[in-house]
Amino acid sequence: MITRRILLTATALSSLLPRHAPAQTATAPTAAAAPELLVEKKVFEFANYRTRGGANLATGRIGYQTAGTLNAAGDNAVLIEHFFTGNSHAFGRYAAGEAPGYWDAIIGPGKPIDTNRFFVVASDCLANLNARDARTTTTGPASVNPATGRPYGMDFPVVSIRDFVEVQKLLLESLGVKKLALVAGGSMGALQTVEWAAAYPDWVERAMPAIGTGEIDAWLLGWLDIWEAPIRMDPNWRNGDYYAQGRQPPLQGLTEALRIVTLHSRDRGWAREFGRRPAEGQDPTRRIGDRFAVEQWLEDAAAARARVSDANSFLYLTRANQLFLNEYDGTEAALSRSRARWLVLPSAKDRVFPVEYAQEMTDTLRRLNQPVEMVELKGPQGHLEGVVDIAQASDAIRAFLAR
Amino acid sequence: MITRRILLTATALSSLLPRHAPAQTATAPTAAAAPELLVEKKVFEFANYRTRGGANLATGRIGYQTAGTLNAAGDNAVLIEHFFTGNSHAFGRYAAGEAPGYWDAIIGPGKPIDTNRFFVVASDCLANLNARDARTTTTGPASVNPATGRPYGMDFPVVSIRDFVEVQKLLLESLGVKKLALVAGGSMGALQTVEWAAAYPDWVERAMPAIGTGEIDAWLLGWLDIWEAPIRMDPNWRNGDYYAQGRQPPLQGLTEALRIVTLHSRDRGWAREFGRRPAEGQDPTRRIGDRFAVEQWLEDAAAARARVSDANSFLYLTRANQLFLNEYDGTEAALSRSRARWLVLPSAKDRVFPVEYAQEMTDTLRRLNQPVEMVELKGPQGHLEGVVDIAQASDAIRAFLAR
Repeated sequence: MITRRILLTATALSSLLPRHAPAQTATAPTAAAAPELLVEKKVFEFANYRTRGGANLATGRIGYQTAGTLNAAGDNAVLIEHFFTGNSHAFGRYAAGEAPGYWDAIIGPGKPIDTNRFFVVASDCLANLNARDARTTTTGPASVNPATGRPYGMDFPVVSIRDFVEVQKLLLESLGVKKLALVAGGSMGALQTVEWAAAYPDWVERAMPAIGTGEIDAWLLGWLDIWEAPIRMDPNWRNGDYYAQGRQPPLQGLTEALRIVTLHSRDRGWAREFGRRPAEGQDPTRRIGDRFAVEQWLEDAAAARARVSDANSFLYLTRANQLFLNEYDGTEAALSRSRARWLVLPSAKDRVFPVEYAQEMTDTLRRLNQPVEMVELKGPQGHLEGVVDIAQASDAIRAFLAR
Repeated sequence: MITRRILLTATALSSLLPRHAPAQTATAPTAAAAPELLVEKKVFEFANYRTRGGANLATGRIGYQTAGTLNAAGDNAVLIEHFFTGNSHAFGRYAAGEAPGYWDAIIGPGKPIDTNRFFVVASDCLANLNARDARTTTTGPASVNPATGRPYGMDFPVVSIRDFVEVQKLLLESLGVKKLALVAGGSMGALQTVEWAAAYPDWVERAMPAIGTGEIDAWLLGWLDIWEAPIRMDPNWRNGDYYAQGRQPPLQGLTEALRIVTLHSRDRGWAREFGRRPAEGQDPTRRIGDRFAVEQWLEDAAAARARVSDANSFLYLTRANQLFLNEYDGTEAALSRSRARWLVLPSAKDRVFPVEYAQEMTDTLRRLNQPVEMVELKGPQGHLEGVVDIAQASDAIRAFLAR
């Protein structure tokens, strides 16, 4: 049973933690044949960034990685944006034998997003959740505020998906990029993709939002609030002021928040392996404190995740998601600005962004006479199909990039 | 804005609190034409009940209400079972001018479940959530343990959906009922309906589970655990020992738990009226502590609900749901015992029990050659369609009861 627990935890992490996470899929035959792509984590620094909400960040940093070579025109670039719990490790390995990035099945030499053709960039976002992970670089509430010499905590300014785009643009400009042949990402990465196409239509030739939505409506605003509420409930949270020596971070609340995200991101097909088994040695039919195996697994997986995450960053990320497209008068107004070709990749059994959301975005693009194709991802993993089994869209992506 | 807030809160309650709740629907024209049905809340007492988990309840009580007259054969009875946050007030009014029960649109003289033809009984369940509401009678963790003279708290035995059925059977027997022409209920009431058909096939002529499921699989076990987790996190919960004078109940945790249930039970169509408006005077684009209107509404609605609810009862109810059909070797084994005719009423946009669950139960019944019809409820309310707009199934129910 112990062996099993460890195995399951590794599986859990593979869906949440790209850096430890081989995106093992049965449908990625090229991965074995292709040479291993090695990538290096780099850091981009910026100064005096004015947030969309009007605050000033005197200094800031985000991590990124690249593969391929930028052409002289600077127009063969691809930008990959990560999901809520992810970071810039979307493809390649930091060292031979280490786990590849979460979309490694579709990014690399000869793969659908071909690094022999494209200069591919993936960056960490501001207020990245993995603030306590050595391989994530981010400026957020856990960073030191140069004005005080202490972590920002809740004094960090509100940032939006649009802010992520702005900082990515600074990074791309610093690399000489003039145009994006493709912007792509899953989940929160899909929101960044849409925001890019609306904000900088001249830059974006193709947009590929996976497991995304064209709007964060009131129902999704509410869910994001449900996700984060346990953090605010944890007495150790202390209004975000928990970084000082001798204080404990709100690990219980953060674990509970990640438990919700973990279950919400999956579907019943994934859960089937647990059945209705009790946790080892427990009897929920007789003892109210005893649990089922799936409950214990969620707890263990989320607790492991919480140890490299920052609770305040979680709050800033949910807010950034809530502010998706908030500078436009609705989805149609935003999408009408786009001049991209679109490949929309929802997951049929997505419980976070039900497939209707992507369908409606696709319908809106069609109504606007914009070139768009939608391909539904199938499988038992719910929302996570777009991360762990993106390989199933390989042919669609190749065709999209050939046009 | 204050007027609006009150209005919205009343709407929220109408979906959760049958006793304050006119189930207002555009599709219930008979409600105005029919004479008002008055009902009386009664109390059933039982002694020395042995739970399915093997514990003994020396004494117990549940509330109930009836309408219509039992025939001499005792076989024209109908049993109505309530949902997670409900109680026995399924139909009629306690006094002229008061709000009717939550399924009043389909139960009453001349209505689809016709009280001129049937003797209709609705009962509170054990460990009912509304333990602090004067019009709910229930034995649960907030009740006084006769062995100690103090509330049970977490010493109350685990009870299951099957236990609810057993106590209902005692009640029905005390009333002279020999057979049920119909067992029906929504959500948790649907689970009780299925459990009845499996446990006492000789009793159940027709079964009508609305917004239900044929199984609580690992994914749903996990969700029920997500629902209740905020209660366990609240420092005022104290392992369930909060009833003593001078102690505060875990209202914050209970409110958060009810916030999850409230949003999960609805769908994006319901949420549309809020749009992306901030709460009054707030600016979530600039202040991390500020909120959107939908978040504030969820908080207000859930807090109102929490004031008449008991946190420990919530924990016992989630466990009861988790133990659905736990005495059988799976759904097919349970359903194969049934000799009922079935009308299955899922909601197309149910986010609690996605429609696939009811579809699979229906498929299983068909495979078992059992007579079953499935009619999908449509509308913007998600799971709650089966409570607030059950009237749309009126014709299907009439036809079902005519067979």
